[in-house]
Amino acid sequence: MAPQTPRLVVPIDVKKRPWEQRLPLHNRWHPHIPPVADVTEGEIFRVEMVDWTGGRIGDNNSAADVKTVDLTVTHYLSGPLRVLDAKGVAAKPGDLLAVEICNLGPLPGDEWGFTATFDRENGGGFLTDHFPSATKAIWYFEGIYAYSPHIPGVRFPGLTHPGIVGTAPSPELLSIWNEREKKLAEDGAGSLTLCEVLHQRPLASLPTAKNCLLGLIEEGTPEWERIANEAARTIPGRENGGNCDIKNLSRGSKVYLPVFVDGANLSTGDMHFSQGDGEVSFCGAIEMSGFLELKCEILRGGMREYLTPMGPTQLHVNPIFEIGPMEPRFSEWLVFEGISVDEAGRQHYLDATVAYKRAVLNAIDYLSKFGYSKEQVYLLLSCCPCEGRISGIVDSPNAVATLAIPIAIFDQYDYDAMGAKDIRPKSGKVPAGPRIVKRTPDVLKCTYDGNLPITPNPGAEKKST
Amino acid sequence: MAPQTPRLVVPIDVKKRPWEQRLPLHNRWHPHIPPVADVTEGEIFRVEMVDWTGGRIGDNNSAADVKTVDLTVTHYLSGPLRVLDAKGVAAKPGDLLAVEICNLGPLPGDEWGFTATFDRENGGGFLTDHFPSATKAIWYFEGIYAYSPHIPGVRFPGLTHPGIVGTAPSPELLSIWNEREKKLAEDGAGSLTLCEVLHQRPLASLPTAKNCLLGLIEEGTPEWERIANEAARTIPGRENGGNCDIKNLSRGSKVYLPVFVDGANLSTGDMHFSQGDGEVSFCGAIEMSGFLELKCEILRGGMREYLTPMGPTQLHVNPIFEIGPMEPRFSEWLVFEGISVDEAGRQHYLDATVAYKRAVLNAIDYLSKFGYSKEQVYLLLSCCPCEGRISGIVDSPNAVATLAIPIAIFDQYDYDAMGAKDIRPKSGKVPAGPRIVKRTPDVLKCTYDGNLPITPNPGAEKKST
Amino acid sequence: MAPQTPRLVVPIDVKKRPWEQRLPLHNRWHPHIPPVADVTEGEIFRVEMVDWTGGRIGDNNSAADVKTVDLTVTHYLSGPLRVLDAKGVAAKPGDLLAVEICNLGPLPGDEWGFTATFDRENGGGFLTDHFPSATKAIWYFEGIYAYSPHIPGVRFPGLTHPGIVGTAPSPELLSIWNEREKKLAEDGAGSLTLCEVLHQRPLASLPTAKNCLLGLIEEGTPEWERIANEAARTIPGRENGGNCDIKNLSRGSKVYLPVFVDGANLSTGDMHFSQGDGEVSFCGAIEMSGFLELKCEILRGGMREYLTPMGPTQLHVNPIFEIGPMEPRFSEWLVFEGISVDEAGRQHYLDATVAYKRAVLNAIDYLSKFGYSKEQVYLLLSCCPCEGRISGIVDSPNAVATLAIPIAIFDQYDYDAMGAKDIRPKSGKVPAGPRIVKRTPDVLKCTYDGNLPITPNPGAEKKST
Amino acid sequence: MAPQTPRLVVPIDVKKRPWEQRLPLHNRWHPHIPPVADVTEGEIFRVEMVDWTGGRIGDNNSAADVKTVDLTVTHYLSGPLRVLDAKGVAAKPGDLLAVEICNLGPLPGDEWGFTATFDRENGGGFLTDHFPSATKAIWYFEGIYAYSPHIPGVRFPGLTHPGIVGTAPSPELLSIWNEREKKLAEDGAGSLTLCEVLHQRPLASLPTAKNCLLGLIEEGTPEWERIANEAARTIPGRENGGNCDIKNLSRGSKVYLPVFVDGANLSTGDMHFSQGDGEVSFCGAIEMSGFLELKCEILRGGMREYLTPMGPTQLHVNPIFEIGPMEPRFSEWLVFEGISVDEAGRQHYLDATVAYKRAVLNAIDYLSKFGYSKEQVYLLLSCCPCEGRISGIVDSPNAVATLAIPIAIFDQYDYDAMGAKDIRPKSGKVPAGPRIVKRTPDVLKCTYDGNLPITPNPGAEKKST
Repeated sequence: MAPQTPRLVVPIDVKKRPWEQRLPLHNRWHPHIPPVADVTEGEIFRVEMVDWTGGRIGDNNSAADVKTVDLTVTHYLSGPLRVLDAKGVAAKPGDLLAVEICNLGPLPGDEWGFTATFDRENGGGFLTDHFPSATKAIWYFEGIYAYSPHIPGVRFPGLTHPGIVGTAPSPELLSIWNEREKKLAEDGAGSLTLCEVLHQRPLASLPTAKNCLLGLIEEGTPEWERIANEAARTIPGRENGGNCDIKNLSRGSKVYLPVFVDGANLSTGDMHFSQGDGEVSFCGAIEMSGFLELKCEILRGGMREYLTPMGPTQLHVNPIFEIGPMEPRFSEWLVFEGISVDEAGRQHYLDATVAYKRAVLNAIDYLSKFGYSKEQVYLLLSCCPCEGRISGIVDSPNAVATLAIPIAIFDQYDYDAMGAKDIRPKSGKVPAGPRIVKRTPDVLKCTYDGNLPITPNPGAEKKST
Repeated sequence: MAPQTPRLVVPIDVKKRPWEQRLPLHNRWHPHIPPVADVTEGEIFRVEMVDWTGGRIGDNNSAADVKTVDLTVTHYLSGPLRVLDAKGVAAKPGDLLAVEICNLGPLPGDEWGFTATFDRENGGGFLTDHFPSATKAIWYFEGIYAYSPHIPGVRFPGLTHPGIVGTAPSPELLSIWNEREKKLAEDGAGSLTLCEVLHQRPLASLPTAKNCLLGLIEEGTPEWERIANEAARTIPGRENGGNCDIKNLSRGSKVYLPVFVDGANLSTGDMHFSQGDGEVSFCGAIEMSGFLELKCEILRGGMREYLTPMGPTQLHVNPIFEIGPMEPRFSEWLVFEGISVDEAGRQHYLDATVAYKRAVLNAIDYLSKFGYSKEQVYLLLSCCPCEGRISGIVDSPNAVATLAIPIAIFDQYDYDAMGAKDIRPKSGKVPAGPRIVKRTPDVLKCTYDGNLPITPNPGAEKKST
Repeated sequence: MAPQTPRLVVPIDVKKRPWEQRLPLHNRWHPHIPPVADVTEGEIFRVEMVDWTGGRIGDNNSAADVKTVDLTVTHYLSGPLRVLDAKGVAAKPGDLLAVEICNLGPLPGDEWGFTATFDRENGGGFLTDHFPSATKAIWYFEGIYAYSPHIPGVRFPGLTHPGIVGTAPSPELLSIWNEREKKLAEDGAGSLTLCEVLHQRPLASLPTAKNCLLGLIEEGTPEWERIANEAARTIPGRENGGNCDIKNLSRGSKVYLPVFVDGANLSTGDMHFSQGDGEVSFCGAIEMSGFLELKCEILRGGMREYLTPMGPTQLHVNPIFEIGPMEPRFSEWLVFEGISVDEAGRQHYLDATVAYKRAVLNAIDYLSKFGYSKEQVYLLLSCCPCEGRISGIVDSPNAVATLAIPIAIFDQYDYDAMGAKDIRPKSGKVPAGPRIVKRTPDVLKCTYDGNLPITPNPGAEKKST
Repeated sequence: MAPQTPRLVVPIDVKKRPWEQRLPLHNRWHPHIPPVADVTEGEIFRVEMVDWTGGRIGDNNSAADVKTVDLTVTHYLSGPLRVLDAKGVAAKPGDLLAVEICNLGPLPGDEWGFTATFDRENGGGFLTDHFPSATKAIWYFEGIYAYSPHIPGVRFPGLTHPGIVGTAPSPELLSIWNEREKKLAEDGAGSLTLCEVLHQRPLASLPTAKNCLLGLIEEGTPEWERIANEAARTIPGRENGGNCDIKNLSRGSKVYLPVFVDGANLSTGDMHFSQGDGEVSFCGAIEMSGFLELKCEILRGGMREYLTPMGPTQLHVNPIFEIGPMEPRFSEWLVFEGISVDEAGRQHYLDATVAYKRAVLNAIDYLSKFGYSKEQVYLLLSCCPCEGRISGIVDSPNAVATLAIPIAIFDQYDYDAMGAKDIRPKSGKVPAGPRIVKRTPDVLKCTYDGNLPITPNPGAEKKST
């Protein structure tokens, strides 16, 4: 007669704004954001969370909300939670915190999500030089499945996961983050080679008090001012886990997080119904609110026992995780390949990022031949359970990256679009029968009002002549 | 009563040198290397091949042969094969050549392979700045399984594949390759940022007549001289496929190759009994001789129909492939993560290569805690069926890459090493019972006689004090 | 802006008894039990359900409730639901009703279940001649995982499914059922051969008004009397689906049910958190209350179009189903085999039931060597995701049946019981270290007060001497 | 520099008859058939074998050879092999012999197989009362794939396995076999209920000297006469393993066989390129010649340590096995269900054999709607990797058995038959476009010249009126 229902530790009311929730949310990493609750090793507890924007992107017919969204709001997190052992002793710096994801899902009554690309002037995405406009697709859930009115002909089971699981940094670690990212932003020219290809900006998102939410720290107080101006933004994954966007961190998986502060101060957020490796469109998962059922174990001294620092200090470590047993099962995959030669034909040196960009571009053009718009495929590859691989990283000068797409996501039940079911190359023309695009609204799309150039693709241009 | 046995098109005698084989081999890409045989659409044919070195690396007790191997010999390929349709009409530029791998394996009587790292002065590897010495491990095969006397405690089924499958380039494509790679080699400074991190040299392997083997073209003739001096080296994967080292290109898979010359001129080689994503130690698969049973289909006009050029010309395309249904099945994985911060603590911008380097380094240090030497793990992660993923490529400034290792490769039958079976983090110390290293020879290892510095890892160093 | 939350069609309050629920339940099959609600083709709706006993078996420390449970209560079903198409036209006899299981799970606040064997005088089970006593194990859920205080050392993800999904029979079909089952019960002697081996009684459960619950039909009315005395019991699966106990009918699967009455009258119940093939202990799944999220499609005329009757009438058909993509993934299995020779050494003729009995008995004895009681293993094999196969059914006189057990269910995290993690045969003695049984309560168990003999197993007996 | 090539222990020349092979074959089980060779624990060795008929069934255009084949020839086995440990001590009765299948496949130059049904007067099959005629389909292999000119539109990877792996019985065990099977044959009436449904004869195949082949025992000697008249036929699987026809006993799997005689006397044969669970047409796998690469381990005393006898003597045990990691991967399955009600509408009591018969009949009729003949489907379901499950064995009176068919076996590359690719039920008529049968020869078929009645299926008959 054990207590079997997970204890609800962080409740969310999706009708309220992030700062109105019963337990206050936060959207920065800082050692001094106080825990909102305690959890005990071994207990199953439930944490609910808003979508990363806290409701700013709507289930509506326009991408305008995406175009103008202020990224300083990212990401509204639930927690921090202080983790105690059975005797009430908190996790300590140097411990390893094993967090098992026993279950997760959308919040009842809020079973929908969105996938989007930001405007190039407002965050962009992996391919923002090709796709500078803000776009959006809405997804609805049917239990384990998602489908979109804006990308017809696909329906797939979600490999649902939290984009963000992390512990609080210590002051020393926070300072390391701020320094190295500031240096990157300042020395931008030194990274120009890669930026020239990726065209993403800004280089880094440095601390800012704008839109800062700090949980139990009251806005306007001196403490709030201090923390807000030094707290790390949540966009990149770092030593504490954070925004790793690892799509396989789903039901039954386990993440081993280093502990940097007393109590570990575990925070989670940014739920994804599904995401492809790389999350290429940036706002690229099926973003939603949701819940986690978690179970923690404290491995005392485990950080030193199991993790080797790989950098200047003992804090330069990374989490480990185990993949769970409940992933959607696919058996047939079509795979696209890219090498580290960019669209201008320039040779890069073993650059997996450039190679992956090429693989994704190849896939987009390929699938667009079956009737989709390129924007539809870009969003689809961001959120469907595709796999991005580093296949070869030593055969200089070309890195080889691959993108594998499960063929079964193309919906057998969409009878008007059956031409798209089998997307393999075949003799003769691309299946020309009932194409998808004929009866389709496209993704929601805004104009791009900036002046940055689109990456030219001379090969393709010539072709259309 | 159809002919059911695959026709042996390219036979290999493993006791002979590459230039002594009945059908001459080649180790360069060039449009004018003549086909050695014809194959017909729909027929099943068998191609045998030497290991990439043509027998230069031996099943012996020293890594000296690896240390001194001349990389200008890479890679000895079987072919080219001219592909005809049922009416005898050859594949044409603009077609797509679908090559199905019906079966493959080691050559009977030669069931062994090797995994190695080159000396830093002679090609290096992904982590050559950490591991500058030449090392070697021998692997023996027991049917689908491989085990090594130099890396005890592991035994795994091979995801066997050819490292190289490609078509011949046209003169125009060859010229594109040579120009862009030459430019990289000459402008080395422009790529200095990445090279500083990877420390691999040379930047590119430009054409050289040294050790050049050109099939039916007789050495010493003017034609040989011309071709040898402009033929592309086989090290990188390129538009024609080539050395893609895609570990999933195994039994039952299919690759769609663009055709650039009449007849397609299909070449294959570089068989791998098994390889991890990335093939990190460079000579990192379980390298072996072997055979392929292939079946071709010509998709007329398919290159234009299905592939969109992504670059300055119509030739800037990449192959597509489908994964086959016969891969080893694993269900439990331990995953290591890396972000694009290098060992010096410097922040890189969305660099998946740096992130993957960190993930691999993290995995090596972790597994070395269970009793392996770091060199053993480096070779193991090069050749076991581990998965390298680009997990996040948009959360600036950190790319997140992951390396997933199937737990089941740690051999249940190695009774003296049972402590290593479960490599998950656990409460208490790393399992301290019967460690593997106690009874183990290490990998075969040479001295490193160069003067290049080892990448410092201050964090780890401090720890050991 | 579609309605995305599944409509709650049948709500359950687990604190109430079956006859107190807002929409009345039923526990018999009959064409005249009226629908309690309508559902429309294409909509996602939610049906909640009690456990099959309606709360008669408790989360307590005794198996007494199992020993005395009255099986005439089986099974409390939710529904019937009338299925309409988008135009409001009901499903018709001769249609095929495709029911997709979009999601399912335990009811929030009721996350526990039980596995049991009935007393031999009260229903027994597949091996009741070996295990005549009533036993019970309680299971608690941690998200996707279940564990039991009564069977330590195992923890596994559930392949959750409804034991019962069915449509209402027509009067003609009901009459066929009653006649053939009555004939079996009366002609018992004719089946004596098999019964002698299985020892299960009764042969069939014929209609009875005792404990009959008929939904909207008010008890005590003449109509109730009529229906109660002719309505079919829900124990066996039949032409309408019903109690098929197919463990793979889980998330994302789809069942195609024949329609025999206007509206189809779909009923569901008997939720299982997990079950092994065969559900050998009879009350053998992890029995629980739960919910289904369903989506229906009416294939007009599909019964005739797709199903061929296999028997005397057009009604002798069986459902078809598709397995979903979200099953737990296992890669290592230990397999036990049985042939159709019974424990007395008698040869049976191609009898898969006898062969499977032997396979299960073999598995029980094998696993009991690792420290479990046989009763623990019997319950475990009833409810864990093991696979029961008919491997050979033609090699007379022996049918060969196999039982495959996923090795990973033995819990890696149960540190005191690590000796049980690897249950493969090995050199030397059965691992004798920290056995499970040492610190274990057994399953809850009652005395068997009857006089029926236990099946002798002379071979095993001799051994212990 | 270990010896890595498997030692060829039993060579086969497929151009020679079974009795002409260099090491003589045998087709009976008997303790006194002498070993033909020794193998040592730990070594990898290769055993080649003829197909079960030793070449009596041809790659020709007639099923006449099947109709008249004399079943007293079954099965020609390679061996027996005496198994020694590293010190040269033979396996002893009471040991457990672990046999790992490291690799297997067809014999080079003989890459074809056949699937057949026997005439009802000559062995029949599971459904011989429905399909009394001898039929045959030829299969050709393309590496891992098989296809048949007689069953177009399917192509699938083989889950290749030996139908027979077994150890020699002791005299005591042999005597047990002969007695119990003789009793069954004599008491046939006692099993009439089941036979009435299966219609297979003979009930058992008792010892006969006809066509007996006894390895090194010279025909015509008194010893030959004695052994031939008491040696057990190889048709059924028994305590020694033998003809278990377990389709998952493929690459990388391991079987643990009890040892009954000194040396174990391991025999193997009856290679199957692929088989469905149950092997329903009897000669139902893709039968072929082939090879095994094996590795043995002797678990001293393991029979007593790990196996519990389940019957009158210590010899009443069954083998255990582990499934290997290299099975074909399928993700989408269509499942047919059967209950234990026969075609006459009679209720049987928890009879899994009857239930499975119904499931197979249902599947045959279903698939025949897509253009196949029923004979084609019967053979297909015998040899494709379909799964036969005992789903429910306790819900009296109905056993529920299921047959799951992987949808991907329907060949995507058979462009003329694309209507068959998706065999799921759908709205509207069964896809009526380009049906398979239009351009198809059927299976090879003989007349049935006997007088036994076909099982009537009144439901279906009425339908066609």
